[in-house]
Amino acid sequence: MLTNKNLVTTDDLSNGEMEAIFSLADEMSGAMNDQLGLCRGKIMASLFFEPSTRTRLSFETAMHRLGGSVITAADVGATSLAKGESIADMARVIGSYVDLIVIRHPWEGAARVVADYSSVPVINAGDGGHQHPTQTLCDLYTIQREKKTIKGLKIALWGDLKYGRTVHSLIFALAKFGANILFYPIPGLEVPEHVLEKLTREYGGELERRETLDRTVKDSLFPLDAIYLTPSSPHQLAMMPDLNIQVELKTGVDALYVTRPQKERFTAAEKGQELKEKYPVVDKKMLRDKAFRQTLVMHPLPRVDELAYELDADPRSRYFQQAAQGVPVRMALISLLLGVREVTPPAEDVLPEIAYPLYQREFGPSCPNPRCVSIQETETKYLKPEFKIVNREPLTLRCTYCEHGFEPGYVASSDWHEGRIATKKYHSAASHWARKIRPEHLIVFNSAEEAEAHGFKPSRFSSVRRRRKSKKQ
Amino acid sequence: MLTNKNLVTTDDLSNGEMEAIFSLADEMSGAMNDQLGLCRGKIMASLFFEPSTRTRLSFETAMHRLGGSVITAADVGATSLAKGESIADMARVIGSYVDLIVIRHPWEGAARVVADYSSVPVINAGDGGHQHPTQTLCDLYTIQREKKTIKGLKIALWGDLKYGRTVHSLIFALAKFGANILFYPIPGLEVPEHVLEKLTREYGGELERRETLDRTVKDSLFPLDAIYLTPSSPHQLAMMPDLNIQVELKTGVDALYVTRPQKERFTAAEKGQELKEKYPVVDKKMLRDKAFRQTLVMHPLPRVDELAYELDADPRSRYFQQAAQGVPVRMALISLLLGVREVTPPAEDVLPEIAYPLYQREFGPSCPNPRCVSIQETETKYLKPEFKIVNREPLTLRCTYCEHGFEPGYVASSDWHEGRIATKKYHSAASHWARKIRPEHLIVFNSAEEAEAHGFKPSRFSSVRRRRKSKKQ
Amino acid sequence: MLTNKNLVTTDDLSNGEMEAIFSLADEMSGAMNDQLGLCRGKIMASLFFEPSTRTRLSFETAMHRLGGSVITAADVGATSLAKGESIADMARVIGSYVDLIVIRHPWEGAARVVADYSSVPVINAGDGGHQHPTQTLCDLYTIQREKKTIKGLKIALWGDLKYGRTVHSLIFALAKFGANILFYPIPGLEVPEHVLEKLTREYGGELERRETLDRTVKDSLFPLDAIYLTPSSPHQLAMMPDLNIQVELKTGVDALYVTRPQKERFTAAEKGQELKEKYPVVDKKMLRDKAFRQTLVMHPLPRVDELAYELDADPRSRYFQQAAQGVPVRMALISLLLGVREVTPPAEDVLPEIAYPLYQREFGPSCPNPRCVSIQETETKYLKPEFKIVNREPLTLRCTYCEHGFEPGYVASSDWHEGRIATKKYHSAASHWARKIRPEHLIVFNSAEEAEAHGFKPSRFSSVRRRRKSKKQ
Repeated sequence: MLTNKNLVTTDDLSNGEMEAIFSLADEMSGAMNDQLGLCRGKIMASLFFEPSTRTRLSFETAMHRLGGSVITAADVGATSLAKGESIADMARVIGSYVDLIVIRHPWEGAARVVADYSSVPVINAGDGGHQHPTQTLCDLYTIQREKKTIKGLKIALWGDLKYGRTVHSLIFALAKFGANILFYPIPGLEVPEHVLEKLTREYGGELERRETLDRTVKDSLFPLDAIYLTPSSPHQLAMMPDLNIQVELKTGVDALYVTRPQKERFTAAEKGQELKEKYPVVDKKMLRDKAFRQTLVMHPLPRVDELAYELDADPRSRYFQQAAQGVPVRMALISLLLGVREVTPPAEDVLPEIAYPLYQREFGPSCPNPRCVSIQETETKYLKPEFKIVNREPLTLRCTYCEHGFEPGYVASSDWHEGRIATKKYHSAASHWARKIRPEHLIVFNSAEEAEAHGFKPSRFSSVRRRRKSKKQ
Repeated sequence: MLTNKNLVTTDDLSNGEMEAIFSLADEMSGAMNDQLGLCRGKIMASLFFEPSTRTRLSFETAMHRLGGSVITAADVGATSLAKGESIADMARVIGSYVDLIVIRHPWEGAARVVADYSSVPVINAGDGGHQHPTQTLCDLYTIQREKKTIKGLKIALWGDLKYGRTVHSLIFALAKFGANILFYPIPGLEVPEHVLEKLTREYGGELERRETLDRTVKDSLFPLDAIYLTPSSPHQLAMMPDLNIQVELKTGVDALYVTRPQKERFTAAEKGQELKEKYPVVDKKMLRDKAFRQTLVMHPLPRVDELAYELDADPRSRYFQQAAQGVPVRMALISLLLGVREVTPPAEDVLPEIAYPLYQREFGPSCPNPRCVSIQETETKYLKPEFKIVNREPLTLRCTYCEHGFEPGYVASSDWHEGRIATKKYHSAASHWARKIRPEHLIVFNSAEEAEAHGFKPSRFSSVRRRRKSKKQ
Repeated sequence: MLTNKNLVTTDDLSNGEMEAIFSLADEMSGAMNDQLGLCRGKIMASLFFEPSTRTRLSFETAMHRLGGSVITAADVGATSLAKGESIADMARVIGSYVDLIVIRHPWEGAARVVADYSSVPVINAGDGGHQHPTQTLCDLYTIQREKKTIKGLKIALWGDLKYGRTVHSLIFALAKFGANILFYPIPGLEVPEHVLEKLTREYGGELERRETLDRTVKDSLFPLDAIYLTPSSPHQLAMMPDLNIQVELKTGVDALYVTRPQKERFTAAEKGQELKEKYPVVDKKMLRDKAFRQTLVMHPLPRVDELAYELDADPRSRYFQQAAQGVPVRMALISLLLGVREVTPPAEDVLPEIAYPLYQREFGPSCPNPRCVSIQETETKYLKPEFKIVNREPLTLRCTYCEHGFEPGYVASSDWHEGRIATKKYHSAASHWARKIRPEHLIVFNSAEEAEAHGFKPSRFSSVRRRRKSKKQ
């Protein structure tokens, strides 16, 4: 069922497939030494373009426990990339050597490119601040082993929700499994808008933001930034969120997922703020609140100062198990992708996959995310910007690679002006004309200047001229 | 017998256990290809936080020759540590992946911490300037193969005896086996005091220092800094050292252990001295002296300029064999620690282990060694200073981690002042009061200021006030 | 036949041996999974002292596909070398651990030193700008699979022919197999003289340089710098090169071997030139010329800008296959060197090996190549300069290690002046006296000053005095 598939984002796995991985991990962790024959003669490439010890060693351990071999390029910053090679070339060549590629890369969307260009299955072991889906598998597996289900649980996310790719992967997976999510970010490190946008658009739940939360809710425990209410929550909860959240929180948080401020990704401004000083450490005292009486304390590790060592002996702490389970979970995943084990997924409710129309043009906007793989110098030689049109009002495009979204300011239609220069008109993306353009004819521009540089004139039905005038005044 | 034990310092192995390792190494080196089944399915983590090629590759080769697998983190400086992770967390996580950990780390005592926190056997592959016990196993194995015994031999140590961790491990092991040791340090790079202190306190022999040596002895050959006379030496030798050393030296040195100046650990002052210029190179001419006629020339490698290439073809040179034997010796060690082989150690004289009382308080002195693991920022979150009280007169504490010792200036008793603030008095560590405090009540301070900062007043029976007055004058 | 041999340069393999490797590669690539038992229990050391991903991973994959184990030291710049260890010591030690060494090193001739000092077979995976013979095996294998033969083909080399070690290895191998070579260097990055010198001296063909080429030939397609005409070319071609080349080029180029400017080896001056701007990219448009209709487009990869991505889908492109074939070719090579497979080479015409007299003296010139292993500080402790006397008119010496050549200015004879100081005379290397000195008596000097510093006086039969006078004027 999973043979030869890639795991780039959590969307690549259905709930049933994840559950199949979990039950295979259960089976394997009970009989570690019996798995040695499974991957005999198979080779995994472990390509880490960012420093990592834990994740890399966990993958490599998993492959060795399956009897397979590993070739490693750790901390590759200085090697082939320095010679100016593209990710696509690297993927094609290494893909012709081995049976499976595990890739970590600082550029967001890099794992997607490797998957697109290599001939073997690819696992994303972290691509910038985008996703880290195998960490999410370990996280969910840890929760499920303890709580038997994920559906309907209340999971609190704490710390750096902006740069923590493990958090982004986890949010989507929790939503898929029907959990409620409490967002407790370090101020300034809130979940990025494009993640929230996708969360609410695609997973059917409802997001209550801080502005609309009741004071008693938002300042209980510590500053609550937002709540995601799964559609599988009791109907009342979804209807009267504030009141019900209060009630719900009293019954306790099921898991508290603490994360480290990802200082290596901070902007200069963020580095200056010394966030650590301002934010409480998760320790025994904090967890004395009765909402945490049954809470699993989790952390993807490594920790720095955000989680006190005194909790290591606390019966609620699960972070070391979470790390240890990385091996059987990855063993299960690898054997399924390589097709050396097969599992029939349980019958399941599958979230309908949304088939957004694609946007791809030779000219016009490229992805606005500076860490996106699609705009890097070595990659633009062969990669063209590609977006999903995820919304029409406001018009919103989402990068296929890094999944960042943006709202272009101006539009035109390739249909209307076909062949006639006089009709090459552009419109405000907010105008009613914009909504009439069919996706396959859509042309977008970030600015009027860009539109005019491509030979388009302002439409008299657009509000563009007025806006430009007002700028001049 | 050795199953699941750690090898952090040479003290972790009895003489009988070392001999068992040597005889297993003999057996294995005679049948290298028959060992492939021994560690099938076992995984060793090879974690090198300092550059190394030889030691790491030797360990990894050993594991592969046993049919096991290896995961490697070489030159980890920039990875998880850079994220601020502690050694304890790393040890717990990696220990949950693999069956055996081999660790090299620049901090002294780091291997002890890894052993304390991981659930699998740990081998110290070098922790700063502290110890490197597997190198010592290779050294002793080389000597024993050639000389059939180590007992009673005269072993000369030459070069950097200050920073050479291989030398420190070797000194203790030679003493345990009853060898005599001649110390020929590069001036300024003498054996550290804490090593000599432990040597004389715990291994039963006698140390003759340069000051007390006869001129004809101390300036023969090259400047002799000290001699360690094993208690197993002939009685006369121990009684009239100078005369007998002269006689003994005439019968020749059994092994000359040359070491490289460890420039990477030099202080700024030491770097400026250009030690190399001042010190003779070990070459054919030097070894013409009849004391070296039967001498094994050894070196832990890599060499730089201290050992001439012309000796490579000399029948006395053993350094390449010494390196080559690293593989069978490590194979033997690994299989014993993993319990895939068992050996009954020969009957033996065991040195009685000294059970020093422990000193551990929430406040007060921390280890004075700047390279000690216990005082590093990432580790103080969970590690408390811990010392062995190795002497009372003068009061001497030895760090449990790096084994550096120090003599605190002031003491107090938790018993005397229990509950009564008026009796919170501190005393000079040299005063007769100090000796009356039972170890479990002992409180130590480096300075009077420190004592007073903790609410203690000077005792009128102490010489503290006088001393402080004299300072003021 | 190849058991225990080294592969340092393409000269180490006869044509028959290369063909045996190719046919074993054919056999193995058809049954990849059947090779797992071949190298069970064998260990390969993969020592990369220069950044590399592709070559290293290709070798390691090959060893794993043969069921062997690998120990890796990647990017070793900072480890043992930093401690000042010599290549010879490293080779001896690692050679005592493993069964096979693969070495990449920035110093030219380094692989020769490793081969000389280690006790196991050594494969050169690239030594500075000198050679990269296994890349050449992949290149030839790719050509032979497509064209069935290499003899008589026209192979165009394009790009950086100065620093591209893959090009240097390939040139000699093509000449051995009787191919014609068209040199299309980026201006300023022409094939080094010492390579052309060896090519014409040892492989029996003829070199037509740009100066002597007809304008219609040299400026067709793009600037042709030189042509090597193999002796196996039709007689007419060798007789009337210009005319025939024109005719031959019309029948098309068989393979176009594109290379990347090796900017990491550029001198400061070369870096300043921005070579890329001046030189055309190999793309579809360029390959429209009918000479390229049947041309295999090859590249050792990684590519940067010299080869357009649009060619990836072109049926003539072979560079990804070329990379993929690195695995079976290296599997074949490794199993032959380790003696786990044997192949009887086909009957063949062997080029007679030229037994040049050797030149080795304690004093006098050392190799003029700044990247040669023989002049590096750590290596001069044991390596003496060694040269082959490859020509007498003009007197030409070729370094045994890096194969760079030079023409010394002055000579003397150890025979003539034997014992008599009065006859210690030196001569101009261009004088007729020079030719009378027998190789075993030859002494060479780069300058008259050097000769005089060693106690030699100018010969009155030499032109030295005159030359020195003219210098002074």
